Amino acid sequence: MIKIGILGGGQLGYMFLQNALQYPCEISILDPAADAPCAPHAHHFVQGDFKDYDTVVAFGENLDAIGIEIEHVNVEALRYLKSIGKKVVPDPEALAIIQDKGVQKAFYVKNNIPTAPYFELDNWEDLKHKKATYPLFQKSRKDGYDGKGVQFLKSEADLDKMLQVPSIFETPADLDREIAVVTVADHLGNIVTYPTVEFVINEEYNLLDYLLIPSSLNKTITDKAEQIARDVVKALNSPGVFAVELFLNKDQTLWVNETASRVHNSGHSTIEGAYSSQFDQMLRTLMELPLGSTQLFTTSAMVNLIGAEGETGPAVIENVEKLLAIPGTYLHWYAKAITKPGRKMGHITLVDDNLEQLKQNIKQVNETIKVVSKK
Amino acid sequence: MIKIGILGGGQLGYMFLQNALQYPCEISILDPAADAPCAPHAHHFVQGDFKDYDTVVAFGENLDAIGIEIEHVNVEALRYLKSIGKKVVPDPEALAIIQDKGVQKAFYVKNNIPTAPYFELDNWEDLKHKKATYPLFQKSRKDGYDGKGVQFLKSEADLDKMLQVPSIFETPADLDREIAVVTVADHLGNIVTYPTVEFVINEEYNLLDYLLIPSSLNKTITDKAEQIARDVVKALNSPGVFAVELFLNKDQTLWVNETASRVHNSGHSTIEGAYSSQFDQMLRTLMELPLGSTQLFTTSAMVNLIGAEGETGPAVIENVEKLLAIPGTYLHWYAKAITKPGRKMGHITLVDDNLEQLKQNIKQVNETIKVVSKK
Repeated sequence: MIKIGILGGGQLGYMFLQNALQYPCEISILDPAADAPCAPHAHHFVQGDFKDYDTVVAFGENLDAIGIEIEHVNVEALRYLKSIGKKVVPDPEALAIIQDKGVQKAFYVKNNIPTAPYFELDNWEDLKHKKATYPLFQKSRKDGYDGKGVQFLKSEADLDKMLQVPSIFETPADLDREIAVVTVADHLGNIVTYPTVEFVINEEYNLLDYLLIPSSLNKTITDKAEQIARDVVKALNSPGVFAVELFLNKDQTLWVNETASRVHNSGHSTIEGAYSSQFDQMLRTLMELPLGSTQLFTTSAMVNLIGAEGETGPAVIENVEKLLAIPGTYLHWYAKAITKPGRKMGHITLVDDNLEQLKQNIKQVNETIKVVSKK
Repeated sequence: MIKIGILGGGQLGYMFLQNALQYPCEISILDPAADAPCAPHAHHFVQGDFKDYDTVVAFGENLDAIGIEIEHVNVEALRYLKSIGKKVVPDPEALAIIQDKGVQKAFYVKNNIPTAPYFELDNWEDLKHKKATYPLFQKSRKDGYDGKGVQFLKSEADLDKMLQVPSIFETPADLDREIAVVTVADHLGNIVTYPTVEFVINEEYNLLDYLLIPSSLNKTITDKAEQIARDVVKALNSPGVFAVELFLNKDQTLWVNETASRVHNSGHSTIEGAYSSQFDQMLRTLMELPLGSTQLFTTSAMVNLIGAEGETGPAVIENVEKLLAIPGTYLHWYAKAITKPGRKMGHITLVDDNLEQLKQNIKQVNETIKVVSKK
């Protein structure tokens, strides 16, 4: 029985585990939080810091294959584990590129992957003395995710808002919309993509409303996006699941925003919508099984379930029974004990081949469900 | 957070658990085997005998809802748990009918459900003195499942083969084929059915080859089968998932063979093939959520994965990588440590809207996969 270890036991590891249990394998999870969602359910749970070299080596050295559900892990330890013959997915060298936004951007440029123009400053204060064209997005080179480590600088007047860390500075896209392509590579170099995912924005609030797969974009654009995603993953030269996030500019050119070297929010509705989900593919890459089919059963949408404003404490989800009465609706609760404003507590997938019906159902979902704290 | 307990931690509980983890609930499992498939993965695992009154009461009295994945459990304990306000699914009275094949047959007759003619003998030896028309199927009233507790009596010459337990004796069907209808009822009395499942027999070996959903039968028959299944579940007057197994006679009449008051082998491919699987429905009935959609995404088939002849010991599954290269193929491994000849070790679901392609893929699956013991 193959022994698989995952660095990280949050919601991505949790959804991975739910699928992995149907395969002949034994799953160990490493996470610093004793109450991580995966903790009660993995074959083995180890409480420990996945950023610590010795902890990761000790965790991995009795396993056959090691994967990740979070990118901020100790790459040196993964390099060592690979050197002693362990299967590591993604490859530590690919992860090293992804972990550092400066290295990641240089990688795109070197491989002729279209991306936003940028420059890099190890000393962020140098921006004051640089003749730069604003606005700019400052992105910290390391440890950024989910909008953290990003600062919008509208003009020189915003210089005092700067993040005081080594950063890259990007020209903002002239954004039509954001899209993503979840892409999977196996150990033989075979690469498959899911259909392009579209981030649909609520224009009233200027917030993400839902993710839609397949997107509403025309085939010329999605073919191009999927080819760019393949090029990125081919150049990374690593097995694993990758989410290539792209900007579609108003002139219909595409820029790669960034790449995640793991399962990703934008691929969640593949659980219900596709023959093989992104979590299933993650398992297949770790077990060196043939890649699953990325074909869709149906159109699907995904809505994040976010902790409500002003609510911090033991999580309670309201109106589950009303939610699940909406046709084609699935709840994924992430089993986090505590809700906080803005925390991802779960997601909802909706399926319907009729796009208008799907949109109506999404609206109903958004009006129905709420995560609050226990009074 | 609702606390749910399941009596039994075998493969049915295992598949239930995989789905249940996406809901806000806490799952406890009671099973006599320390190495039951569910043991490492439930929130709480209790090793104990689900046939023992005190064990079941102690297990259930701090929970909110109690379900089953095996029928041979202590009904008196469930009656008690219901009496102190616990949600019990299925209702203990329905389970009491199902547990005893004599009571179950009388229930069909009383409710005008078509079923094979039969008689009941508490003293099995009385058959010797009875003027009976052979052949007969003898079925033990209690503890029969998966073909256990059944004896075919071709003629009086077979009397020495009789099972020496209180039994019913049934006239065999003039069998065209066997079918089943997985049927779900909620606490409000709403009833839904999945499309009829067909047991497809390998004519060469006269063994079950695969289960097919939807069946290849005409609508007149499937409508009738689904109506009979509804009638059975309505008369049982209980929430839960039920599998109503039927004989289709050569004259195209239908007889109910027996009913399972739990998730069932015949509904496994609803995991991939249907909007909401039988395991999802089981969870919904326990949480008193609206029933899921029984609509199918696609045609699907299910092949049991049985321990090979002559192989007893630590289980090894051969050719997984070849299996999963067959398009539309899913493996469900049941995480049982030991394989034995004929033991259900897992199942394989195949999906394809093209029935001929599906049959070819099933043939390839059967030629590929094997469960042996570790040498």
